[in-house]
Amino acid sequence: MVTANKALLAAHGAEIYDAARRAGTTIGFEASVGGGIPVIKALKEALAANRILSIYGIINGTSNYILTKMTDEERSFSDVLEEAQRAGYAEADPTFDVGGIDTSHKLAILVNLAFGAHVDLNKIYTEGITSISPLDIDFGKVLGYKLKLLAIAKMHEGGRAEARVHPTMIPDEYPIAKVGGVYNAIQIVGNACGDIMLYGRGAGSMPTGSAVVGDIMDIARQILTEPSRKLPAADATNTERSGVAVQLQPMESITSLYYFRFMALDQTGVLAQISGILGRHSISIAQMIQRGRKEGGSVPLVIMTHTALERDVQKALVEIKALSCITENPILIRVEGEEH
Amino acid sequence: MVTANKALLAAHGAEIYDAARRAGTTIGFEASVGGGIPVIKALKEALAANRILSIYGIINGTSNYILTKMTDEERSFSDVLEEAQRAGYAEADPTFDVGGIDTSHKLAILVNLAFGAHVDLNKIYTEGITSISPLDIDFGKVLGYKLKLLAIAKMHEGGRAEARVHPTMIPDEYPIAKVGGVYNAIQIVGNACGDIMLYGRGAGSMPTGSAVVGDIMDIARQILTEPSRKLPAADATNTERSGVAVQLQPMESITSLYYFRFMALDQTGVLAQISGILGRHSISIAQMIQRGRKEGGSVPLVIMTHTALERDVQKALVEIKALSCITENPILIRVEGEEH
Repeated sequence: MVTANKALLAAHGAEIYDAARRAGTTIGFEASVGGGIPVIKALKEALAANRILSIYGIINGTSNYILTKMTDEERSFSDVLEEAQRAGYAEADPTFDVGGIDTSHKLAILVNLAFGAHVDLNKIYTEGITSISPLDIDFGKVLGYKLKLLAIAKMHEGGRAEARVHPTMIPDEYPIAKVGGVYNAIQIVGNACGDIMLYGRGAGSMPTGSAVVGDIMDIARQILTEPSRKLPAADATNTERSGVAVQLQPMESITSLYYFRFMALDQTGVLAQISGILGRHSISIAQMIQRGRKEGGSVPLVIMTHTALERDVQKALVEIKALSCITENPILIRVEGEEH
Repeated sequence: MVTANKALLAAHGAEIYDAARRAGTTIGFEASVGGGIPVIKALKEALAANRILSIYGIINGTSNYILTKMTDEERSFSDVLEEAQRAGYAEADPTFDVGGIDTSHKLAILVNLAFGAHVDLNKIYTEGITSISPLDIDFGKVLGYKLKLLAIAKMHEGGRAEARVHPTMIPDEYPIAKVGGVYNAIQIVGNACGDIMLYGRGAGSMPTGSAVVGDIMDIARQILTEPSRKLPAADATNTERSGVAVQLQPMESITSLYYFRFMALDQTGVLAQISGILGRHSISIAQMIQRGRKEGGSVPLVIMTHTALERDVQKALVEIKALSCITENPILIRVEGEEH
């Protein structure tokens, strides 16, 4: 059996793989993630000797097209979305793509292969790009970052894992930051192979066809004579990829670098109040941009943090939002990259 | 059998694959090209449904490290080579790497898989990076190009193919232009999958180990039960990849864009003479840079051409070199990219 149905695999992968194993058959699903990019085969076979440490994926072409246009042309989300819909790059109802749902489905499939464990879709923190403002893309540029909708999976010591989908700022010099338009890319870090990136067209009938026919040829050649070893299985001998339950961390316990934008009244004491709250929650400031001075209006205050705990960040934002000098909901964007 | 010996495979691949087929066994050689990057598996299996149209590879880490340093730090080849040797990134005798030989061996292996035909190593035009000057890297920057040692293979209509290795200017915006340091990358264009790029560490004991163990696991799992279909074979059913002889074009009949740098006396009529010779050989000028004015000395004249025939270019350069106003051997660097 060959399928490109990622929603089905993401939700019911474990049952489907089990059923295939019991029937002594197998299932090809190369087309489910990354179109013509052979990422499934890489994880299942070529990198089989590796313990997979992390995966970073730009795996939704519609979102990447919109973010690329917003970045290059400094336009708003709704403006670019409309154009993308007219050009056929976005659906009439784009929620599945721009809401991050498609990305989280694909991430579930990748995590399953990489870590050898089924992941409950509901436990993948998922945030789309609908509320991204060109202002934050612009501040990101100033700070040396590109904004991407990223699927992130990490395996920590002791089987603790992360799987999350959200807009993410990535340092300009990272290869994955340079993936533009409808292109997809998946970066895989393995303990032996180091960091690998696979890049290509993530959608379209021809790339999808390439993946489907590749699967069919594999099966026709009886390459998959031992299907139980080619699907995530409870009896696999590779412990890192075995069915041993992988503990998916709740979102509040992840750590990250953070970008904040606060819109605050331009009055004395604002910075002291905000930095005081951040400090009390163990969030330390790495960089700050304060720009523009409007007569009596509110001005943006941008802060990049050192590594902080999501739970602390959420608590701090609630307190900051309640300050009388804060005029809009604070903006939070997670950041990948090294500490500065 | 599993091997990472690319020199052996490049020179005797046809015999080795034949012997393996006759013995009913197979041979794994993922580690022979691109270290831990699964490019062999991609060509053999994942992209099996595709007719491969072209391959562009940065597949020698030493050369890419040296060119990257020369580009970023505006230093000379010999200076950076010495540093690379001290750092262990280059051999005491670096000829195999910087002379392009290693790259042409790897290209022979890729061409064999992609086009299904053995390629005579001696017929792969091979030019290294030893005579690259920082001046040309700098002019390339001005014109929007990065200089890379590139392995190029193209399949044209009617089975005419190209395979060549030489320093190449690539447009800045191409993903492969952004591959820096010791990293390797292989761009593959297939008729169905479109353009795919695989990126990662091309050398080192761990990435190589990742590839070798991946091969061993493949064989152990008896994935390769039908070895004759997994090696370039005369009886393959896929005609595009069959053993039907692929006609490798002689270098003089390829076409390309070209970058020239002439060092000429700063006197009137020089440009007229040079452009006259180029014109008579059907080489038309796309861009030109004339820089600096030295009292009585020679100045660089840089020319980017439209598509031209290698044979015409070589003839024109002989004539230009003979001009009395020309003070040094002309520099020729081939350029990939769209016509301007």
